[in-house]
Amino acid sequence: MVRRIAFIAVVFAVFVSAGSAQESQPAPAGARQEFIDRLVKEAYGSGRAYSMLEELVTVAPARLSGSANAARAVEWAKKTLEGAGADSVCLEKVMVPVWRRGKTQSLAIVSPEAAKADPLPIFALGGSIATPPGGITAEVIEVRSFEHLRALGDQAKGKIIFFNQPMDRSLPSTGAAYGGAVRQRGRGAVEAAKMGGVAAIVRSMTTRLDDHPHTGAMGYEDGVVKVPAAAVSTMGAERLAKRLAAGEKVVLHFEIECETLPDAESANVVADYRGTEKPDEIVLVGGHLDSWDVNQGASDDGTGIVQSIEVMRLWKALGIRPKRTLRVVCFMNEENGLAGGRAYYEAHKDEMAKHVVALESDSGGFTPRGFAFDATNADMPDLKAMGSLLEVLGAERITGAGGGADVSPMNAAGVPLASYVPDGHRYFDVHHSALDTIEQINERELEAGAAAMAAMLYMIADREKPLERVKPRENPRNR
Amino acid sequence: MVRRIAFIAVVFAVFVSAGSAQESQPAPAGARQEFIDRLVKEAYGSGRAYSMLEELVTVAPARLSGSANAARAVEWAKKTLEGAGADSVCLEKVMVPVWRRGKTQSLAIVSPEAAKADPLPIFALGGSIATPPGGITAEVIEVRSFEHLRALGDQAKGKIIFFNQPMDRSLPSTGAAYGGAVRQRGRGAVEAAKMGGVAAIVRSMTTRLDDHPHTGAMGYEDGVVKVPAAAVSTMGAERLAKRLAAGEKVVLHFEIECETLPDAESANVVADYRGTEKPDEIVLVGGHLDSWDVNQGASDDGTGIVQSIEVMRLWKALGIRPKRTLRVVCFMNEENGLAGGRAYYEAHKDEMAKHVVALESDSGGFTPRGFAFDATNADMPDLKAMGSLLEVLGAERITGAGGGADVSPMNAAGVPLASYVPDGHRYFDVHHSALDTIEQINERELEAGAAAMAAMLYMIADREKPLERVKPRENPRNR
Repeated sequence: MVRRIAFIAVVFAVFVSAGSAQESQPAPAGARQEFIDRLVKEAYGSGRAYSMLEELVTVAPARLSGSANAARAVEWAKKTLEGAGADSVCLEKVMVPVWRRGKTQSLAIVSPEAAKADPLPIFALGGSIATPPGGITAEVIEVRSFEHLRALGDQAKGKIIFFNQPMDRSLPSTGAAYGGAVRQRGRGAVEAAKMGGVAAIVRSMTTRLDDHPHTGAMGYEDGVVKVPAAAVSTMGAERLAKRLAAGEKVVLHFEIECETLPDAESANVVADYRGTEKPDEIVLVGGHLDSWDVNQGASDDGTGIVQSIEVMRLWKALGIRPKRTLRVVCFMNEENGLAGGRAYYEAHKDEMAKHVVALESDSGGFTPRGFAFDATNADMPDLKAMGSLLEVLGAERITGAGGGADVSPMNAAGVPLASYVPDGHRYFDVHHSALDTIEQINERELEAGAAAMAAMLYMIADREKPLERVKPRENPRNR
Repeated sequence: MVRRIAFIAVVFAVFVSAGSAQESQPAPAGARQEFIDRLVKEAYGSGRAYSMLEELVTVAPARLSGSANAARAVEWAKKTLEGAGADSVCLEKVMVPVWRRGKTQSLAIVSPEAAKADPLPIFALGGSIATPPGGITAEVIEVRSFEHLRALGDQAKGKIIFFNQPMDRSLPSTGAAYGGAVRQRGRGAVEAAKMGGVAAIVRSMTTRLDDHPHTGAMGYEDGVVKVPAAAVSTMGAERLAKRLAAGEKVVLHFEIECETLPDAESANVVADYRGTEKPDEIVLVGGHLDSWDVNQGASDDGTGIVQSIEVMRLWKALGIRPKRTLRVVCFMNEENGLAGGRAYYEAHKDEMAKHVVALESDSGGFTPRGFAFDATNADMPDLKAMGSLLEVLGAERITGAGGGADVSPMNAAGVPLASYVPDGHRYFDVHHSALDTIEQINERELEAGAAAMAAMLYMIADREKPLERVKPRENPRNR
């Protein structure tokens, strides 16, 4: 689908030397504040992240891996990075899984009779098999945990298993609330099948009560029967639970059309803006270009993509070229495979020792709070000092445990990982649902985040010493 | 309009002693963290600020002082404070100005001919006189500052003066950008009239480009002719400016219906939740109950009202009753007169020495950043230490220069003033426009702010010493 795939083809390579008219010499440490002041003014006054996002979600909404829109997004990213001032832009081949949602997505109560007029809004989960022709009609049983399901024994046999553990809204961190409930979505079908269930219906991953289902990835396990799985809206889950709590026997008709096709060729888009003194040392920033197929993918992760590109554009616009090279990576296939993150790591293994930091923005384009770093204890004080300069943007909070799914493979090579941390209150309201549109993004908040990223990466790229290497962890993706 | 006005009538006074079953003894300083943890859990899990806001904007949207809806809001606040656990609720009389917008609000280009199909969206400014019957038809002239206007000399005579200095979007603080442009709205009509202008059209106070005009208060000056004034949408302002920049002579037809009626009786709503050891010492929290007439007044200032009430409800729900009394004040008439703030100060002059702090929430219900305090240098370290406990809510930032319009009169008596400081990126997008609706408010962000206020006020209310008195300032309102 992407025609001009080239492994390391430099498609655009005008090297602008550090001594050119528009670009200043690398700023000394004392000039950090002056640069940040200029950056803040440029980002709020003339930032381009939001207009890039408008373009992306218009040109290529619903960019699920392997789709025509995902291919359009790759072309858009290439063109946009060229325009942002990249010295080189490469498309790097990635083989991605191809899963397609069909037209029919329905869940309805067929008994008791009185409830027939009450359809329950669902989305098939990504990776699910379709229901057999004509769908599945079976009694439903509600569970609040896998332990609860296992304790049911034979009662689960032949039933549709309804996983209804809500995200814990009383937790201040929505990410923690998501983490506490999302295994129902990822493993619900496997656990249901193990107990003889015929399908899995999972409460949507959001603390809001509304009628929008939230899709997401699910998986099967070798040796376990595959059963179809879907997410039901939280209001639908509540209505269903209410009937069951009243002791009613509830029979559902469940039907989803979807299919998995052979893997297809796609690409990561990789752009460099070369450093002056240490051009072989890389400061990486990225997000993921693919999205789910039910929305614009504005928050997930259009914002991370445009903020990453805007880092380069801001440096270029302000005539800043630090010691190290800035590399912007638009990763493919974060949502249902992580093939892009793995492919980048494999393709750049030899360069890993030169990756000074890998920062991902994949938590939405909301108002900045700061950054999380998986860095050594020795480096944290300096990172916190850098953060303190970002108070004007509200991005001064520096914590540990940074990372992101796409950059996580690099942890194996000791690369310090980092995440841009925006305010998290709103993220799961729209995540993986039809609500994830540009209307949910505030222009100034988005530009502020890009400015914070540009400032932080500039300080790291221009630092005398690179960040220290970190120890590989067991599961960097979950950090 | 408010029937049951009573100066100090205690309408609801069930005193719940500190020793009652549901309420614990005042917590020692070491128990702060434990209380905050419970508060955070209650606010996110079962907070009521958002549902109160839903009620308020349904029962009484468009609560301009002196309107029937403002009277409904007073009754709603009384009832809601009673339900939140107040020991007493009083309606305290306030005489308010009554300004009414009529049906006609129109601004259109009548020459050049080609532009006739391009109406410019406007709202009359609050306090403006109406245009004469049939409206005003006159040439328009654009100015970017009062200095610019004065330099025009006779050129301004007989013209409609178009004040088109935008809010500076490159400033990180939207409040500072507003502060830099808003005098055009407040004094534009006076300055226009002084130069012989026949009307004032002011660019709306927002950094966004859209077709929503933003109203707001304006004033006249004794001895200066009164001319009518309106705000035009930013897109309208841009279209008009483009024609003028092209050198066209542009004639406008301007017509607004509005009137000022005699002052009317309204009320502040004042509720106490009595302290245990020092019940005569008062920790005050409030917002303003009135709003503009063109919207729901959700952000301005429904959120401040419901957060203030929620402080009391949260304390009550958690069985917390600190040493000092919590007083919630729903002020009337912040938008176009400040009569409520002044009336509260006059009515409680004798109590001012016992007001330990007066905190206002009137910057929107967005995600928390912290608090601003007009406190002595000696008290700031302890306030910052309290703030550091609020990091879980994102409310750890404690700065100087606190206050709020309604509480500002109390500065004259040395009362330390404070403001709740939410993130400011989105506030002026909706401020005083039809966009200020509950859809712009995120439930979790709103509840988080209420929790932060409840925690901060609890710590002040339960502190051994009251905050030190401050020195009166020349213009506390503008702090």
